[in-house]
Amino acid sequence: MKPAIDFYFDFSSPYGYLAAQRIDALAAKHGRTVAWRPILLGVAFKATGMAPLPQVPIKGPYSLRDFPRCARFHGIAYRQPGVFPIPTQAAARAFYWLRDRDEKRAVELAKALYKAYFVDDVNISDAENVVRVAAALGCNADEVRAALNDAAIKENTKAAVDAAIAEGVFGSPYIVVDGEPFWGMDRLDQVERWLQGPF
Amino acid sequence: MKPAIDFYFDFSSPYGYLAAQRIDALAAKHGRTVAWRPILLGVAFKATGMAPLPQVPIKGPYSLRDFPRCARFHGIAYRQPGVFPIPTQAAARAFYWLRDRDEKRAVELAKALYKAYFVDDVNISDAENVVRVAAALGCNADEVRAALNDAAIKENTKAAVDAAIAEGVFGSPYIVVDGEPFWGMDRLDQVERWLQGPF
Repeated sequence: MKPAIDFYFDFSSPYGYLAAQRIDALAAKHGRTVAWRPILLGVAFKATGMAPLPQVPIKGPYSLRDFPRCARFHGIAYRQPGVFPIPTQAAARAFYWLRDRDEKRAVELAKALYKAYFVDDVNISDAENVVRVAAALGCNADEVRAALNDAAIKENTKAAVDAAIAEGVFGSPYIVVDGEPFWGMDRLDQVERWLQGPF
Repeated sequence: MKPAIDFYFDFSSPYGYLAAQRIDALAAKHGRTVAWRPILLGVAFKATGMAPLPQVPIKGPYSLRDFPRCARFHGIAYRQPGVFPIPTQAAARAFYWLRDRDEKRAVELAKALYKAYFVDDVNISDAENVVRVAAALGCNADEVRAALNDAAIKENTKAAVDAAIAEGVFGSPYIVVDGEPFWGMDRLDQVERWLQGPF
């Protein structure tokens, strides 16, 4: 069996959200699975000196027009969140906690968290909202709440993010196919070609 | 007749070069012409606080892999220039000088300058190389040389670049269709859809 595709994303990234709607089907079409790997863009920005898009003069306003237009172009539901961007530690920790128990459900949680934020305008920087989304998927709310405050889970998440940045991840989404890195929702066409063989 | 598409680009921009190979045919397919508008990315970077790609940690090395891969993906000849990025005042001035005389030939000059830099590895930050490329297209070398040192041409070019930035242009390529802005070679698919009607 061929190795999984690495799919790095931040829960506050519109382009990560859009790619998340496509990546599993794209991989499956070519006999691959996807390793979902949430990161924290704030940490990556420290490494590159980049800033969150909305803070960049001129480019920021453009981005706010580009996000929903890309969603319409790809036929994906999208609502610009009222609070944006947000810190995504709680969402990432919940994901990594659940992944160590049941990876398939962790991916379902990731998709549910993205939907909560980018469709239902739920602020998932609030740990209680993360707990609610997880509980709706059948997780035990108290267990999730405890996990979000667990020092080992925090450490695991930090280690996962640091490993991603050490790997060269600087944005979201960032997809690695057999060692070849692709940055951006707009590289999914190249990801697909690469899955048929390096070009 | 429908208005022209605005095509903003920097002569040192790989993605601008790639888009330049496609934009005229794309526009023509939908009954449009293209207004080529070279800018100076260095001036735009001052407005946004952004930095040239190769200077950005982590993202810079990725970009150097992405440039030729995008070229291969689109079937476009590309050689990473030995000196990169470069200041492109001379190229932009030659373009605007010729445009005020013969717009069609100015576009031919733009394409020839891009080919010189991104295929033949000619450093077009050197005014004499710009003169040579223009002369090969039939321009009088002494006239071009004089134009590059002409205060009015310098002023015209500066005014064109300032107007672009005031318009919201922050990167290369940057394409405006009926008031709708698109940034990046990887938005040409959306440009094409927009030419069939806003979505």
